[in-house]
Amino acid sequence: METTTQPAATPDSAPYESTDRTVPTRARERAAYDRALVHAILDESYVCHLGFVRDGTPVVLPTLFGRVGERLYVHGSTGSRPLRMAGAVPAEETDPGLPVCLTVTHVDGLVLARSAFHHSINYRSVVVHGVARPVTDPEEKRTALDALVDHVVPGRAADSRPANPKELAATAVLYLDLAEVSAKMRTGGPNDEPEDMDLPFWSGVVPLRKGYDPVVPSEDLAPGIEVPDYLIEL
Amino acid sequence: METTTQPAATPDSAPYESTDRTVPTRARERAAYDRALVHAILDESYVCHLGFVRDGTPVVLPTLFGRVGERLYVHGSTGSRPLRMAGAVPAEETDPGLPVCLTVTHVDGLVLARSAFHHSINYRSVVVHGVARPVTDPEEKRTALDALVDHVVPGRAADSRPANPKELAATAVLYLDLAEVSAKMRTGGPNDEPEDMDLPFWSGVVPLRKGYDPVVPSEDLAPGIEVPDYLIEL
Repeated sequence: METTTQPAATPDSAPYESTDRTVPTRARERAAYDRALVHAILDESYVCHLGFVRDGTPVVLPTLFGRVGERLYVHGSTGSRPLRMAGAVPAEETDPGLPVCLTVTHVDGLVLARSAFHHSINYRSVVVHGVARPVTDPEEKRTALDALVDHVVPGRAADSRPANPKELAATAVLYLDLAEVSAKMRTGGPNDEPEDMDLPFWSGVVPLRKGYDPVVPSEDLAPGIEVPDYLIEL
Repeated sequence: METTTQPAATPDSAPYESTDRTVPTRARERAAYDRALVHAILDESYVCHLGFVRDGTPVVLPTLFGRVGERLYVHGSTGSRPLRMAGAVPAEETDPGLPVCLTVTHVDGLVLARSAFHHSINYRSVVVHGVARPVTDPEEKRTALDALVDHVVPGRAADSRPANPKELAATAVLYLDLAEVSAKMRTGGPNDEPEDMDLPFWSGVVPLRKGYDPVVPSEDLAPGIEVPDYLIEL
């Protein structure tokens, strides 16, 4: 049985160590290993894209996730394929642990160069390589589920009904430690060739804006229940 | 050499055939195989998450993509790993063709239930399984590169300098046909348990809004070049 002891706390100032898998073959100057940057990119994204291998071929699924320090959590039904493959369901004859790649991407802007070749996007991404393993400690499972809810709306876990024993039993949680991690980002304007500068094409950046529309209360919401502050502050 | 003949046109009304890989084990009612829906979800997203297997472990990278009918294109430097692995660089001793999973996800809203367990997000996603292969026909390569630029900003390819021979040679393009494809989506409010209805927690949906901030022209943009209509119409 794998231990689920959390990794020792590492100061935010210590960067992640690069590995062969986290050093890109191209555009190395865009790669970063700064912990605070990685955490910020992860925390700002509602979903990650979780990649794993099934029958020798890749599978990439969007899923919610949570972060507690240097540990990420994903969850799912005990009937879901990646959870079963990771050994989260003891009855399954699978190895404990599922090699995964967890990726998060923000698109920040569209970069329009004078040449088609130099078109790009401004983005921030994080790629995490590792082995996802089931959380077996009940206390850590509760902590993980709170982190998953608070990842969507900070402060929400404490303002909702916690999972009951039946729900806990139906939910499998995997953890993935932030060890082999890199961020990658592009900012700024287009990088046109000097000889293209006089071409008659507009060039620049279209920044993307993210925001929220007014909340839609449930139709059966009891009168008198106000929109909570943590939503107003979003 | 693999042919790069495009697949026969299929009417939008004919859904994608489901396969073992495209029928989810959970929440099957959220799966859809409608071509027009799949196309719309793909076309609205600036990036996809491309998964492939390297040394037996999964890799998931964000990348731009384009669509022409039932064919997707991704591109990259001839030096990039997935492109080399797909056989896009003839000098590499790799098999032509790279098994991939290409996934696109839109997060449309945050779903806050009274119970932590029923928290969710409203989303639309498309998952494409298949084998990516290099585009070898020069005409199709140009078409693909135009599609990649027009995917970011419709109409832009015709209003920029096309790739020159040197740029074309430095760019590898892979194609992936839309054959084994599924969409998945969640809409609507939270699905709370009947016994939770009277709990004193706000419930409902926080819709996410996507938009654009004012464009930022390049600092060296020649005076007199106006913002093009296709950006104003974004």
